[in-house]
Amino acid sequence: MSLIVVGSVAYDGVETPHGKVDRMLGGAATYIALSAAYFTDVKIVAVVGDDFAQKDVDLLLSRKIDLAGLERVAGGKTFFWAGKYSPDMNDRETLRTDLNVFAEFDPKLPEAYKSAPYLFLGNIQPELQRSVRSQMNGVRLTGGDTMNYWIADFRAQLLQTLKQWDFLLINDSEARQLSGEHNLRRAAAKILDLGPHTLIVKRGEYGAILFRRDCHFMVPGYLLEDVFDPTGAGDCFAGGFIGYLSGQGISPRDGGIDVAALRRAVIYGSVMGSFCCEKFGVDRFRTLTREEIEARYQEFKTCTAF
Amino acid sequence: MSLIVVGSVAYDGVETPHGKVDRMLGGAATYIALSAAYFTDVKIVAVVGDDFAQKDVDLLLSRKIDLAGLERVAGGKTFFWAGKYSPDMNDRETLRTDLNVFAEFDPKLPEAYKSAPYLFLGNIQPELQRSVRSQMNGVRLTGGDTMNYWIADFRAQLLQTLKQWDFLLINDSEARQLSGEHNLRRAAAKILDLGPHTLIVKRGEYGAILFRRDCHFMVPGYLLEDVFDPTGAGDCFAGGFIGYLSGQGISPRDGGIDVAALRRAVIYGSVMGSFCCEKFGVDRFRTLTREEIEARYQEFKTCTAF
Repeated sequence: MSLIVVGSVAYDGVETPHGKVDRMLGGAATYIALSAAYFTDVKIVAVVGDDFAQKDVDLLLSRKIDLAGLERVAGGKTFFWAGKYSPDMNDRETLRTDLNVFAEFDPKLPEAYKSAPYLFLGNIQPELQRSVRSQMNGVRLTGGDTMNYWIADFRAQLLQTLKQWDFLLINDSEARQLSGEHNLRRAAAKILDLGPHTLIVKRGEYGAILFRRDCHFMVPGYLLEDVFDPTGAGDCFAGGFIGYLSGQGISPRDGGIDVAALRRAVIYGSVMGSFCCEKFGVDRFRTLTREEIEARYQEFKTCTAF
Repeated sequence: MSLIVVGSVAYDGVETPHGKVDRMLGGAATYIALSAAYFTDVKIVAVVGDDFAQKDVDLLLSRKIDLAGLERVAGGKTFFWAGKYSPDMNDRETLRTDLNVFAEFDPKLPEAYKSAPYLFLGNIQPELQRSVRSQMNGVRLTGGDTMNYWIADFRAQLLQTLKQWDFLLINDSEARQLSGEHNLRRAAAKILDLGPHTLIVKRGEYGAILFRRDCHFMVPGYLLEDVFDPTGAGDCFAGGFIGYLSGQGISPRDGGIDVAALRRAVIYGSVMGSFCCEKFGVDRFRTLTREEIEARYQEFKTCTAF
């Protein structure tokens, strides 16, 4: 089974109480792909400039990530973002956003991508997300992310786009903004009327909740002793979630979906998000093994069973 | 098995986005006792003035709560607290605190209380908590609560008091203040060096974590559709936790304790805290049944199992 991941590939400058890195590989599609690649075959759709370094290409290729859809704009520069976290790392301030080649991103799927059964649409303009979905034939499970900017200023397009999704994966403040409800249970009920049969609400250090019309599933956040850099943790959650479903071949059939598999996917998402925070940027994924992932999945069981 | 509960019995004035009540039964010992009484025999140690209403006495007696230790000060007035919650109910402002007879509270245990095996020391001056413990003979499990004021200004006395406790049950900001560590896992490790073998950290809507030296157990918060009044929810958590342990006769034996029972106690605590928020003050406990409690316990299982 293979998974298409669409979104940003970028360079980030990040400062946390544990240190500062001026420029390192980042971007939502990068984190999602690196995380999902532990579970399934991943094909990236993104754009970079000709400053995109060979060592970063090599890292992605080492995880067998297909880069046929990684467009390179000659003479262009890769998207750059810089931010600084608060002392408790619950807030961050954006210091710089240079969209560069990302400003003109118009995702075109290579032929070989179009028949893939799994699609994750990272946080980009809703119309572009819709365009990618329409280029595919035979997609079995579609989901994605969005953000406050699209919810506020591109609401009509976003609502149109969401109609075609199986799941939406956003954080709690986005769920509140999209639904106009502060209470998460009410917010979820409204969002599930917009199209997706499944909503996953990420709550940062407090874990995540999966909502469906007839049930919900809650997982607390993994308790890390040290959070070095939370950048990308939500994207790694998304990668673990959709990566696991793709690797297991889970999709709606006969009008239903395997809810137990969705629950396990939320745990794998939580596991991958927690690993992401243990080092700067994507560094944890340079050494992380599938065995460590399974051990942490078991730890989640041990810490939550009663 | 019977449980001694020490703390405040009070009248509260509360305003939330759902309404306003000028004067109603409140106080930590009241909430703890009403909650614990679903699981075990409860004996209260507290003080009130002669304004304490017969209907409130009757409510406590209807739950078979022993009031032999409820001192009445002739000519005195009962502790009064008033507060107003923020629109999202995550913060509250204290509008009035009249300690009244509570200012001179010096708990004396009736003879019939002294041999009880379970003791919960609500949030009062640490020296008074220690005095109660020393009046008991044969206590098998002692735990309690404290607050920012005692942690900051009565630290030495609090540390002396904690040495004799089996468990400490506080919220996350108190755990951070007591330990000087922001990270909860590190905070817990330091607190478990102070005496208690078990620490329970309440995280409000985000649930709770039980810490022991060799393991921890996390439970997410119950997702309510409406929170009418969060006053007393933490105390009802405490009542469910210690009440369940007392009702089951759980205490350390042969140097160990039944950790599976502690986990179940955390769930019962969470269940009782969630019910508390569904109506103003203690009102939910006027109608709550043991069957509803068991149903919500099962709901916790359904919403967290994978």
